[in-house]
Amino acid sequence: MCELLGMSANVPTDICFSFSGLMQRGGETGPHRDGWGIAFYEGKGIRAFHDPAPSCRSEIAQLIKHHPIKSLIVISHIRQANVGSVCLENTHPFIRELWGKSWSFAHNGQLDKRIFDLELNFYQPVGTTDSEYAFCWLLGEIRKRFPTQPSHSSDLTDLIHNLCEQLRSLGVYNMLLSESENLYAYCSSKLSWLTRRAPFGEASLMDEELTVDFCKETTANDIVTVIATVPLTANEVWNQFESGELVVFNQGLVREQRKAPLSNEVDDH
Amino acid sequence: MCELLGMSANVPTDICFSFSGLMQRGGETGPHRDGWGIAFYEGKGIRAFHDPAPSCRSEIAQLIKHHPIKSLIVISHIRQANVGSVCLENTHPFIRELWGKSWSFAHNGQLDKRIFDLELNFYQPVGTTDSEYAFCWLLGEIRKRFPTQPSHSSDLTDLIHNLCEQLRSLGVYNMLLSESENLYAYCSSKLSWLTRRAPFGEASLMDEELTVDFCKETTANDIVTVIATVPLTANEVWNQFESGELVVFNQGLVREQRKAPLSNEVDDH
Repeated sequence: MCELLGMSANVPTDICFSFSGLMQRGGETGPHRDGWGIAFYEGKGIRAFHDPAPSCRSEIAQLIKHHPIKSLIVISHIRQANVGSVCLENTHPFIRELWGKSWSFAHNGQLDKRIFDLELNFYQPVGTTDSEYAFCWLLGEIRKRFPTQPSHSSDLTDLIHNLCEQLRSLGVYNMLLSESENLYAYCSSKLSWLTRRAPFGEASLMDEELTVDFCKETTANDIVTVIATVPLTANEVWNQFESGELVVFNQGLVREQRKAPLSNEVDDH
Repeated sequence: MCELLGMSANVPTDICFSFSGLMQRGGETGPHRDGWGIAFYEGKGIRAFHDPAPSCRSEIAQLIKHHPIKSLIVISHIRQANVGSVCLENTHPFIRELWGKSWSFAHNGQLDKRIFDLELNFYQPVGTTDSEYAFCWLLGEIRKRFPTQPSHSSDLTDLIHNLCEQLRSLGVYNMLLSESENLYAYCSSKLSWLTRRAPFGEASLMDEELTVDFCKETTANDIVTVIATVPLTANEVWNQFESGELVVFNQGLVREQRKAPLSNEVDDH
């Protein structure tokens, strides 16, 4: 299994603190030694870093940890390989363009082999993971249904939720997805989120001896939501996603929400 | 105008030496202060760095300069903006997927506004540059003609040369393009290349007081070709491309070559 980390904020915010915790799990406090990646949106642009080396020993990870890159939306992933060998092209997040926007995608879980039977239209995987295949299928389905961006965002949210539910029927499918404005977080088995806003307090990482007083780092209007496979801090209350739940975050706030129509229990593999 | 830097090699090679020279031109010895980017292929995967800040002052550029990333194909670009503002999404190299391969592209020159009249099919630009628009058009035309990869690479070379010639008719169009195996270099006004192989000698950068003795860095079988807008070293003989010439490099060697059918003189803008 892998670990996901996402962020949505209303002011450009660095993710150094949460990233420090996640990176420790990449071979130090966790078994996820098979690479890591991170995508920062800056306007419509995307700054992405991928490394098949364990994050706890990566020089580029060190750079990101110490060199604050500020962003409104971040998607990050550390990998423990199941399908697909350990190499650069199998490293999340995966990126494709649709409607003149850069879509980025990271997946935690494992899908049944039947995923590879789904027909692809516009996008082809470069690597060999079930995750990239699922992303190519999902984005191709969005493109088929909406050759241009739909005017009502709720139509797109409905479609994405429906496609995620189809993927969940093939295994464990926790996902972070963004097109530069919204962050779509879908949970099949395990995903939590937390919104930090005024009054800000202190937060202590579970995976490293590091405490940050957000009060000193923020202004009263800042809203920052962090999404992670497993809560990163011990002294804050995290919200757990339900299985089959999609939450769309925008500027740090919940913009839309969809739940599974029935209570389909899915095993946490 | 911008500057291009490309590399094709038969063994994984770092580009630290040439990159050092190019980065000096990003605001120090040259006027190209409007961002820079670099793409390293590692198998089918791609490691890309983009920064809208001047390269001579970029922390990420410093990392690349000192942290050798070894690759068979590299495409790099430093930008002096003409069309499109200075921002991340306007920073080369641009990347899109076709046939399950990551295509990367960088352009030096400026195209007439008529470029924006060309019809786009599959790919849409994320930013506002003439360069990204040209790339989206070129890759869309390749995809339209060859929905799957053609069995004869020469057919693809013919098509790419033809498309580049059409773009040259709209202005200055020097280009580096790769799909992870071959490096396509096309010249409209200014482009040079150099192949280093045994017996290796010393090379001295023009833009920085730096000399490398490649003999100490290489083995007898290494073949490394470097392509640059303007020669980077003073004590080596560089080959100049003709206007309208496309050269396809593979593993450091010239694999195919196409020249303009007629001697169309194009001004160096």
